[in-house]
Amino acid sequence: MQDSSPKAVTAALIIVGNEILSGRTQDTNLKHLAERLGAIGISLVEARVIPDKADVITDTVRALSARVDYLFTTGGIGPTHDDITADCVAAAFGRAIDIHPEARARLEAHYATSEHELNEARLRMARIPDGASLIDNPVSVAPGFRLENVFVMAGVPRIMAAMLDGVLPTLKGGARVESVTIRCDLPEGTAAEGLRHVAADHPAVDIGSYPKYGSGGFRLSIVVRGVDSAAVEDAARAVEKLVQDLGAAAERFDPAAG
Amino acid sequence: MQDSSPKAVTAALIIVGNEILSGRTQDTNLKHLAERLGAIGISLVEARVIPDKADVITDTVRALSARVDYLFTTGGIGPTHDDITADCVAAAFGRAIDIHPEARARLEAHYATSEHELNEARLRMARIPDGASLIDNPVSVAPGFRLENVFVMAGVPRIMAAMLDGVLPTLKGGARVESVTIRCDLPEGTAAEGLRHVAADHPAVDIGSYPKYGSGGFRLSIVVRGVDSAAVEDAARAVEKLVQDLGAAAERFDPAAG
Repeated sequence: MQDSSPKAVTAALIIVGNEILSGRTQDTNLKHLAERLGAIGISLVEARVIPDKADVITDTVRALSARVDYLFTTGGIGPTHDDITADCVAAAFGRAIDIHPEARARLEAHYATSEHELNEARLRMARIPDGASLIDNPVSVAPGFRLENVFVMAGVPRIMAAMLDGVLPTLKGGARVESVTIRCDLPEGTAAEGLRHVAADHPAVDIGSYPKYGSGGFRLSIVVRGVDSAAVEDAARAVEKLVQDLGAAAERFDPAAG
Repeated sequence: MQDSSPKAVTAALIIVGNEILSGRTQDTNLKHLAERLGAIGISLVEARVIPDKADVITDTVRALSARVDYLFTTGGIGPTHDDITADCVAAAFGRAIDIHPEARARLEAHYATSEHELNEARLRMARIPDGASLIDNPVSVAPGFRLENVFVMAGVPRIMAAMLDGVLPTLKGGARVESVTIRCDLPEGTAAEGLRHVAADHPAVDIGSYPKYGSGGFRLSIVVRGVDSAAVEDAARAVEKLVQDLGAAAERFDPAAG
């Protein structure tokens, strides 16, 4: 992969959850986050799935937060004994953690009109590290938070998505990555040699090829990505010409977001 | 998470792919691998999604292979210029890499009866690090390989699954993790305090609770996991009693694999 631009804005994701690592639950937050960040010019450069273990969470937050512009975490901020992400993020930055008055007020207001009570377990969800700002949770009230460059969000996809909606306008985006996809029914090995030359001739873009195996055999998507839209267009035309020279039809897709 | 057992066998997964990090493609290999490994007592303890960048792949392979019993990689072993996983794994172990006679023979036999030719690009798929053993690919012939404790597999899910079928019988499994899931319609915050006590009273198992948000509000799955089936059963009964004491019905599921 070429580095897209000196102004690239980078992000990483930590998925906290034994349930993902055991195969019990299929993660979908990574794809959602990647698409939403990509649309504002922020590149997800790494994601890690880690267990609900305090030392692993703390070490991973510390390592990745130093390496990217924005770090996101999903999972581990509910009311139960295995929800330890907030404490671990506090520890990663050497901050104290305690009940946050505004978070508590939101939970109190919510449970005042609920059939359920704000018990000790639920009040844990108001524990926020010193100096963090809250991330709104329009689905189930208990907030996430931002500490330094780390955004701590829920793991339930609907809540994560709602929290992210609130976070995105606060981020400083970068040069948006444009993308063009060219589909054809060439086998990847037939296109590979030509693609290597197209890639060498167009160093300002990334060219990836993704075969998909279906009932009719392989179908190939060739994806051209880059921040310079003229360079992307040039390379996309070179790919189309290659596909046609190899005797196949080239279908082009310009998705809204790269 | 408690450490399940001194005999725990561990694994990690490296997902190589810009297409996953850009949100273009939803990964499903992690869940499949986790389920198949779990069934033979191997715990997936970490997964990382990384870009098609040589230094990142090499460093990540080196770091994770030292930390777990088995390391798996998916993606980056096709015929194109961005397929660099084999070279990076060779580099991680300081091995040379060249065309492997048996891998070449398999490709030659396949393309002899194909409408396509074994061109230079396709022959790259026979490049295998010195000392590696081949992993069969019953779908599209080009093999994966095992080098030391690293299993290098394709990213296309159907090919990955076929390669894994061949790999699994060669692994030394550990104590199988038993799991019982108890479902109820309690809010997580209502069950949390009781679950904390059940978890404290049953240190030999892991207890996780997973709310799912649907049209009827939250529904809670409480999962008890451990290698000692008697301890799992004891804890599961304590969870069922807790749910009933809180005035809800407890539905139990014993999936085939934890």
